[in-house]
Amino acid sequence: MTRQRSRRDHRGPRKVGTIPQVARGQARNPFPPIQILTADQIEMIHLASLQVLEEIGMEFLDDGALDILARAGADVDRSTRRVRFDRGLIEESVARAPSTFTFHARNPENNLRVGDNWTIFCSVGSPPNASDLDNGRRPGTQQDFRNLVRLTQSLNVVDCVGGYPVEPVDVPPETRHLDCGRDFITLTDKLWYAYALGRERIADALAMVCLARGIDRDQLRREPSLFTVVNTSSPLRVDGPMLRGLMEMAENGQCVIVTPFTLAGAMAPVTIAGALTQQNAEALAVIAFQQIFAPGSPVMYGGFTSNVDMKSGAPAFGTPEYAHAALAGGQLARRYGLPYRSSNATAANGPDAQAAYEASMSTWSALLGGCNLLLHGAGWLEGGLCASFEKMIIDAELLQMMRRLFQPLQVDADTIGLDAMRDVGPGGHYFGTAHTLARYETAFYPPIISDWRNFETWQEAGSPDAAQHANRVWKSLLADYVPPPLDPAITEALDAFVARRKKEIAQAG
Amino acid sequence: MTRQRSRRDHRGPRKVGTIPQVARGQARNPFPPIQILTADQIEMIHLASLQVLEEIGMEFLDDGALDILARAGADVDRSTRRVRFDRGLIEESVARAPSTFTFHARNPENNLRVGDNWTIFCSVGSPPNASDLDNGRRPGTQQDFRNLVRLTQSLNVVDCVGGYPVEPVDVPPETRHLDCGRDFITLTDKLWYAYALGRERIADALAMVCLARGIDRDQLRREPSLFTVVNTSSPLRVDGPMLRGLMEMAENGQCVIVTPFTLAGAMAPVTIAGALTQQNAEALAVIAFQQIFAPGSPVMYGGFTSNVDMKSGAPAFGTPEYAHAALAGGQLARRYGLPYRSSNATAANGPDAQAAYEASMSTWSALLGGCNLLLHGAGWLEGGLCASFEKMIIDAELLQMMRRLFQPLQVDADTIGLDAMRDVGPGGHYFGTAHTLARYETAFYPPIISDWRNFETWQEAGSPDAAQHANRVWKSLLADYVPPPLDPAITEALDAFVARRKKEIAQAG
Repeated sequence: MTRQRSRRDHRGPRKVGTIPQVARGQARNPFPPIQILTADQIEMIHLASLQVLEEIGMEFLDDGALDILARAGADVDRSTRRVRFDRGLIEESVARAPSTFTFHARNPENNLRVGDNWTIFCSVGSPPNASDLDNGRRPGTQQDFRNLVRLTQSLNVVDCVGGYPVEPVDVPPETRHLDCGRDFITLTDKLWYAYALGRERIADALAMVCLARGIDRDQLRREPSLFTVVNTSSPLRVDGPMLRGLMEMAENGQCVIVTPFTLAGAMAPVTIAGALTQQNAEALAVIAFQQIFAPGSPVMYGGFTSNVDMKSGAPAFGTPEYAHAALAGGQLARRYGLPYRSSNATAANGPDAQAAYEASMSTWSALLGGCNLLLHGAGWLEGGLCASFEKMIIDAELLQMMRRLFQPLQVDADTIGLDAMRDVGPGGHYFGTAHTLARYETAFYPPIISDWRNFETWQEAGSPDAAQHANRVWKSLLADYVPPPLDPAITEALDAFVARRKKEIAQAG
Repeated sequence: MTRQRSRRDHRGPRKVGTIPQVARGQARNPFPPIQILTADQIEMIHLASLQVLEEIGMEFLDDGALDILARAGADVDRSTRRVRFDRGLIEESVARAPSTFTFHARNPENNLRVGDNWTIFCSVGSPPNASDLDNGRRPGTQQDFRNLVRLTQSLNVVDCVGGYPVEPVDVPPETRHLDCGRDFITLTDKLWYAYALGRERIADALAMVCLARGIDRDQLRREPSLFTVVNTSSPLRVDGPMLRGLMEMAENGQCVIVTPFTLAGAMAPVTIAGALTQQNAEALAVIAFQQIFAPGSPVMYGGFTSNVDMKSGAPAFGTPEYAHAALAGGQLARRYGLPYRSSNATAANGPDAQAAYEASMSTWSALLGGCNLLLHGAGWLEGGLCASFEKMIIDAELLQMMRRLFQPLQVDADTIGLDAMRDVGPGGHYFGTAHTLARYETAFYPPIISDWRNFETWQEAGSPDAAQHANRVWKSLLADYVPPPLDPAITEALDAFVARRKKEIAQAG
């Protein structure tokens, strides 16, 4: 595989292996965000969430965090671990967070800018199960994990991983982060992800990313090279391992995405206004804590508000309520000058029409909400319980289409082509004209899986649906996969690190 | 079936038969249109299209139309039937078209406003084939036609028909318009559609709509009660039957949607800028003709620009290029103060993920382009060659979701629900709270087909995909269908009219 040198030139399509792809390079979103709420309504939610933090407060389930918050002037109740925040403390702390920064990948061509109108499309993160049309659904394995990381590497439109693309349950959990980190580094040269499950695992990831990039801790602190998501245990609680992971990340200058898990009607009020208020309160409290602990450390505002099916309590995604929250969430993030994370989410159980219209609803509203990082961009099914190989390809098609939509329309004498219209005249056609021949190869988005054949030809080919096309494509990408180059000395150092740490963990256990 | 009295109150969901539906009533689109082109670029396209009409001109394949245009001052070449327009003539003629008007249905509760930010969702129009999961794809029949009209009537989110939902090829073509018109009037009380295939068929439709509404020609002229689409035979030609149908419609005050058929790379330049320029030139020429012939008659600006697959020449829809054109088309329509028509289009052959992501791409871009009338809103497949019963239901889900998305988010002390947050506190849940119980029944959009069950329950139920759910839903809607009330005297008069006209046509033939 060759790699495109210029980050800016992502206009021409490019075939990698057997499928047409957009060139590598990060996209910018040219569309001004939709303002679904008025400035007054945003202010009402802002003030209500400050009131929540002053009057109700939030539980921080870590004594070290409580010490830090108490020292900063928060009202800390040690017995309940409830923290109440003065609104001034929240506002001045959150204001320390940077609005923009740059992620550093082991291949600098895969660096990613965060903030403004830059967008990052991540692959799926954290499902316990994997599925494909051939083998159905099963608990995720190391093989699934590796194959999904390989696809993430091979798909140009996917900028980085978004967590373990599936949880490899056949890998021992106490040292899984070491195996997964090593796989991330060797199978992709894009940005990767560490789980905030205590300080130790993050510390291991930091050591590994320094080895991979050949940098020291000082450089790492200046150059965010890893990210994690800290989910609150909504309502109004954040657990200890998450907080300790956050601290290890933040004091080393790595990016934390604070994402409340505010499903309206379950862990948050049944109204979107209420769920957004709670989301905002929880996000502000944790971001304020991070900025008190490590001022200026990179952070993103995560929105994940959706609704549940009130008949069953099952979570729903890609719904109109989800879209409302995705749009409003962007307004809230911008209210604080914070980069905004949203998701490409669906509750569908298979890669069918529902998966596609819910993914479209999620992605359109996230991007029109000004989302800077789209987590679960490719491969999510079942509200996050399953990573689907076919859905990853269907989503890549959707993301490529959005990338193409982001490109400006060229309007000038040349593209308008009055001479071509003169030549063709009334009743003719443009297939063979010079204007067409000079442009047809790159004029239109070339799809990965969309089948535009006429019905008869399609039927003769066995009437393949989009999922079947996607099945063919991921197999072809895996067959063509070539690992990105890596200095053998780095691989050796990584292996030695992993071996040493596994021994230490076994001895400690 | 009961009917909601207030047009404005479409917030509460409502079950009709076995499926949850939005209440009847037309939607308004609260989102400001996306400006994909700058004002300068729009002006460049505007000026280039005026230049096309001045220098290249357009063929009008009807001698009567040529007479009218010559009298108005256009430069008419009788031998080639080529008409060249001075830009002043175009601009002053187009300026006579109304920006807003109201469609009158036989049931006044189904009247529809056109223009501003009002939206109209039509069902599919004009495919030669029908398909469903049980019987596959076949040439359309009268039974298919009637069933699709019944579904249009039963689906609250579908505002009107969008042409024959399928061409009933088992009905004799010379009198098909009489049978179809009678079916439209008896099976639905929503707005219907007549084909501009010469003056006579339109005259029959005008007579029938007067009978159905119990009005005379004067009232009909004041109250648009029918619409038609006039497609140009791109590039730069409009055929005779279309022009004669247009004249019969326009002089009777009925609405014409002028829609150039500008597939970039085939009947229009391969660039979207060029295709839009040609679309704009053709639309302006025909709209100007209509306004010269019948000043002030209702008209809409139709955009249908898409691209072809340059490998095969097959038309593609719901592509990024389609979305670009749908957004820019709205800007052009508003440049002239004209209501804007776009479409929910896809080239997929079955109701799969491709059908859903292409339909989503089309619908989002049409609505963000400020579309006032979404033709083919529900049921289109294969680039218009097939009406799918399952796709109609999948699209109805998509349209209902957009309707819900159009509703404002309520933000006030009551919806924010601080008291509920106080009651629940950190670590609790909201399932049983008073705030939830008071709202849960109407808090969220209830889907028609989206399956939110967990994987195991879904698998036990046979792993139904969205198309299978849609199959169940359309059958249930047809089983529950009740024809809208119609005065038996009207039915009798209609039958007598149809019988008389059939005899006349047989004698004339």
